[in-house]
Amino acid sequence: MNRPQFIDKMIEIIKKMPGVGPKMAERLSYHILKMPYHDVEKLLNSIQKARNLMKNCSICYNLSEHDPCIICSDNSRERSTICVVETPQDLLAISKAKEYNGLYFVLGGVLSPLDAIGPDDLRIDKLIKILKNGRVVEVIVATDMDSKGEITAIYLAKIIKNLGVKVTRLGYGLPVGGDIEYADEVTISRAIEGRKEM
Amino acid sequence: MNRPQFIDKMIEIIKKMPGVGPKMAERLSYHILKMPYHDVEKLLNSIQKARNLMKNCSICYNLSEHDPCIICSDNSRERSTICVVETPQDLLAISKAKEYNGLYFVLGGVLSPLDAIGPDDLRIDKLIKILKNGRVVEVIVATDMDSKGEITAIYLAKIIKNLGVKVTRLGYGLPVGGDIEYADEVTISRAIEGRKEM
Repeated sequence: MNRPQFIDKMIEIIKKMPGVGPKMAERLSYHILKMPYHDVEKLLNSIQKARNLMKNCSICYNLSEHDPCIICSDNSRERSTICVVETPQDLLAISKAKEYNGLYFVLGGVLSPLDAIGPDDLRIDKLIKILKNGRVVEVIVATDMDSKGEITAIYLAKIIKNLGVKVTRLGYGLPVGGDIEYADEVTISRAIEGRKEM
Repeated sequence: MNRPQFIDKMIEIIKKMPGVGPKMAERLSYHILKMPYHDVEKLLNSIQKARNLMKNCSICYNLSEHDPCIICSDNSRERSTICVVETPQDLLAISKAKEYNGLYFVLGGVLSPLDAIGPDDLRIDKLIKILKNGRVVEVIVATDMDSKGEITAIYLAKIIKNLGVKVTRLGYGLPVGGDIEYADEVTISRAIEGRKEM
């Protein structure tokens, strides 16, 4: 007997998600087939709703329900500093540490020659545009502390310094090779306190 | 900043899937938010379609597009033997081995007092009904070889024997290609017990 095609199809699609292997995709698919229909609807609706409500903030590119996002439109925030992060998850992790009160900018990834991701695939031009407005005094580069994040930071530092803006990098606290998204709040606070000029 | 509620909601629902922890649910959710909308639609449609097309065979309770399923309606199959499995996945695994040509019956789980799963939560009454028809000569109990599967097999064996039907259990032993050095002691004991003359 072969598996019904519609189950195969579902497994094949779920298998493409990050961190989901073939066995996991199979288990998830059969779980979905066993779930009460009401729960399946809740799952599908939550995805649909998230996709429909989701916007990218047109200033910082954070995921948000509003445009501009609540951070960019928050007048109590220090507007002379921008913290550059790879992803909205990284932004969230840093904001939870409550150490930083400036603005953010979501780069959308890091440079990765092996994956053919170059400067044009990131939002570097949009960042430059903001910096050319002349109100930003410091950019904190908070890309991950691994090799790709480091290379990206060095690349950005060169460009940003050329614009006459101070560049710092997250410092003490984060382990080498560490992923910002999974760092704890204290570690992130220390890293912001100990940031170094590049 | 807090995460937008619609993302939290999606993470919360995905987190309930088996084998998906909070971090994994987060990663999957953000992946879904980044996917091209066309791919999100493909994902949602595949789930929706599978749920709509899916039927439980009204004889063996296998997941199938047809009722009765292709196995139950296949006249070339030996109808005097039923292989009892826990799940449709187990049925598929056994059918792929191409060693068995009888019918199946999907029990829908195993006895598990700790999870409050008793005989009434499985399809034991439906199995008894089939056996009372009198055409079945042998039931192969192919529940998992762990403690719950074993207890369920013992429970079923008692009932089935009372109906005058022969009961067998899948043979214990070392897996084909298995390394004796790494096999656990119980498995080796069972393999010795079940040794065959050459």
